[in-house]
Amino acid sequence: MKFLTMDSSSRKLIICAVNKNSKVGIFLDNAGKHGKLLAPAIKNMLEFIELDIKDLDFIGCGAGPGSLTGLRVGISTVKGLSIPWKKQIAIFNSLDIVSRASGAEGKHVVLRKGRKGYFYWQKYCGFNRIGDTNFSSIDDLHRFLEKELTLIFENEKDASSFEEYRCIISPEPTFEVITKITTNSYYNNKLVHALELKPLYMQKSIAEINWEKKHGD
Amino acid sequence: MKFLTMDSSSRKLIICAVNKNSKVGIFLDNAGKHGKLLAPAIKNMLEFIELDIKDLDFIGCGAGPGSLTGLRVGISTVKGLSIPWKKQIAIFNSLDIVSRASGAEGKHVVLRKGRKGYFYWQKYCGFNRIGDTNFSSIDDLHRFLEKELTLIFENEKDASSFEEYRCIISPEPTFEVITKITTNSYYNNKLVHALELKPLYMQKSIAEINWEKKHGD
Repeated sequence: MKFLTMDSSSRKLIICAVNKNSKVGIFLDNAGKHGKLLAPAIKNMLEFIELDIKDLDFIGCGAGPGSLTGLRVGISTVKGLSIPWKKQIAIFNSLDIVSRASGAEGKHVVLRKGRKGYFYWQKYCGFNRIGDTNFSSIDDLHRFLEKELTLIFENEKDASSFEEYRCIISPEPTFEVITKITTNSYYNNKLVHALELKPLYMQKSIAEINWEKKHGD
Repeated sequence: MKFLTMDSSSRKLIICAVNKNSKVGIFLDNAGKHGKLLAPAIKNMLEFIELDIKDLDFIGCGAGPGSLTGLRVGISTVKGLSIPWKKQIAIFNSLDIVSRASGAEGKHVVLRKGRKGYFYWQKYCGFNRIGDTNFSSIDDLHRFLEKELTLIFENEKDASSFEEYRCIISPEPTFEVITKITTNSYYNNKLVHALELKPLYMQKSIAEINWEKKHGD
């Protein structure tokens, strides 16, 4: 199987290319703007592994939730690569990466920081998502989430508002994690045409909030 | 802290560069000759993270045991980078990566395939190496290794000769793992000058074996 997959929904940009039995992955943590780094990183990786976009079976793409700008950059890049060669996209929920990397096996919730005082969150049982992805304030989360749930965060600081829960800080994801999630999406027929590809936005952008303040909803 | 670190002792080439709070890592699994890929991969990574060899605090280097050619390529590259700028090298045992990635906490042994019927091996208790790194035949290993030890392998196939033990296949290492091992080596004053840098060879190369066959020891 030959594919390229990536997630640009957080400050951790993760890209992986698989060419049959060979694999190359690049991981950029807090390294600079995704808009500047994503395209050259993909170019280098495909050269390293001697892979051509036209030969890919499909392209994987994390659809969020997470950084609005990160998702716009990632999804636009994937669209740009796939449309000329009519490559289908295997989309996946970006929080699946955090859940899998954590190794949590029972019921757990992945929480990712949104704007101040708000978190994106998703319930899991093992590898399976339970219900929809949500966006809630810390106060609401304390009301919604049962105390016996394990909460998974991406860093120590985010967990500090949830001291009465069992909190786990998820380790850095491996490329094994992102390739497993991508191939699962591929086999479960989550393939979409590039023009149908949309980021999973849960929060309004600051621009939208400012617009509404000025002009009403 | 600013450093570059790498391990080229197996088919999994792993390189990581840290520039204060930013990190970039590249992982090449079975992707081609290290001799062709290592130097351009380092160049790209340093560019991505806006890091210059002359500004590094030190360079990390896995010294083996493992692939003879891989180690020669890696160590020569590190020497080439460090000598002009007089950068010291933080060396580490390449099997530490497999041990750490496995998450094994008690007494365990990491085994890496050498030539046919032979393994490099190292005992650990938690993160600590117990005794020296060894190179033994499968028959000898069955005699040396107590049955209650957990054995860690890099792939399923290697474990098949040790069915009477509890075997774990170590997952892909994260860049967190290699940076932790490298900084531990740095803080424990395992720094050496590039000219002192030597690979940990445990087995004779085929060329040496053939020479001895022809000319005697």
